[in-house]
Amino acid sequence: MEVVNDLLGYDGLKIIQRPDMFHFSIDSMLLGYFAPITKKTERIMDLCTGNAPVAMYLTLRTSAKIEGVEIQDEVFDLAKRSIELNGLEQQIHLYHRNLIGLHKDTGHDVYDLVTCNPPFFKLNEDSNLPSTDYKTIARHEVSATLEDIIVEAKRLLKNKGVFYFVHRPDRLSDILLTLKKHKMYPKSLRFVYPKQGTNANAVLVSAQKGMKDGFLNVLEPLFVHEGNTYSKAVRDIFFYRKDML
Amino acid sequence: MEVVNDLLGYDGLKIIQRPDMFHFSIDSMLLGYFAPITKKTERIMDLCTGNAPVAMYLTLRTSAKIEGVEIQDEVFDLAKRSIELNGLEQQIHLYHRNLIGLHKDTGHDVYDLVTCNPPFFKLNEDSNLPSTDYKTIARHEVSATLEDIIVEAKRLLKNKGVFYFVHRPDRLSDILLTLKKHKMYPKSLRFVYPKQGTNANAVLVSAQKGMKDGFLNVLEPLFVHEGNTYSKAVRDIFFYRKDML
Repeated sequence: MEVVNDLLGYDGLKIIQRPDMFHFSIDSMLLGYFAPITKKTERIMDLCTGNAPVAMYLTLRTSAKIEGVEIQDEVFDLAKRSIELNGLEQQIHLYHRNLIGLHKDTGHDVYDLVTCNPPFFKLNEDSNLPSTDYKTIARHEVSATLEDIIVEAKRLLKNKGVFYFVHRPDRLSDILLTLKKHKMYPKSLRFVYPKQGTNANAVLVSAQKGMKDGFLNVLEPLFVHEGNTYSKAVRDIFFYRKDML
Repeated sequence: MEVVNDLLGYDGLKIIQRPDMFHFSIDSMLLGYFAPITKKTERIMDLCTGNAPVAMYLTLRTSAKIEGVEIQDEVFDLAKRSIELNGLEQQIHLYHRNLIGLHKDTGHDVYDLVTCNPPFFKLNEDSNLPSTDYKTIARHEVSATLEDIIVEAKRLLKNKGVFYFVHRPDRLSDILLTLKKHKMYPKSLRFVYPKQGTNANAVLVSAQKGMKDGFLNVLEPLFVHEGNTYSKAVRDIFFYRKDML
């Protein structure tokens, strides 16, 4: 069974989802909204694109060429049809493969921006997960680890290009270590909190290729809820439309 | 010239300062207020104690034995006299030496809690700082680096003891890497923002000896100002008094 959901809470984009698959989350909206796009941004790659929420959201903000890569057959198929449903085939091109080695198909040093909403959980060797399950692959590092993703992002990016991704705060040490290991120094972190008074449950990370270490900024926090409703910041993200540009 | 300032904004503790030295900052109050003290806390060490703002603040929260270490002669003297001014000689004992190797004087594996408001800035080999200047030593890693401090804190702490310190967000990669290198895994981070809409300018770090990696929590952010006044959280810290316990 498939359902067509609103990608934006307004009369904007639609997205096709299946209940047995991983649904796009607010993380994807945050990536799409905060990704550092400039007038010079010509080419964008979205790794782990899933059913393409980030790639589609980005079309609201830029006319740059957007590409994505998804390894799972059925999820790739869903993404293709969501893109067609919104008439975005001209702007978005999808690759159907593992992201490791993607630069052999696309060229290296060619992207201004690489985005990614990756699998968050480490695959425990003793964990007995169904490795072909859609949700397992979307959530766990079955097909690519964080390090694989950082290495590939670096290859894909032009010098001074930015890798912009979301992850879990409890992986922060890992994230900063792995970025440093590959000389992709973090420029900024923005922590996302479900509401005031709680711990952060996501972090948006920006890392720039070819920059020096030591200029990390921790940006203002983002609260998803205020009282019983979405915060103003998140409502701005939901209701963002091309005609507001 | 010396001045006697309020350590709390209320009729609480007093602190002796000299305009040519490094003044205690709100960071010290945050350390004192948020340091994880329990009923079982028996012995506390404050590294880089300066004129002892953290050690003195902690007396409001606990009757545990508090010790501190300060390397600079004149600053040590100021701290001693501030402690006497407040009649805290019974609870606070100060060491006058470099913190490196301190465990040889105090014993190792003996503290429940080690706090530190360290020098924040790396000493650049080509920087031409007056290395005997009070402020230089308080602010730059002249006498001890972050790694020296982490290594000594680990030696001083009992198993499961907590190292609680404040630092600059732009050193976050360094901090997490160095903690990991010495198997002092971070338990929590709390970012401090001057006000809403700005970048963080401090981070409070808690790391526990003998714990596993992977359980980092990013706690709710702290805003120092709200509009033109101190935030409620910070006013609670300023006006905290023993008789409120």
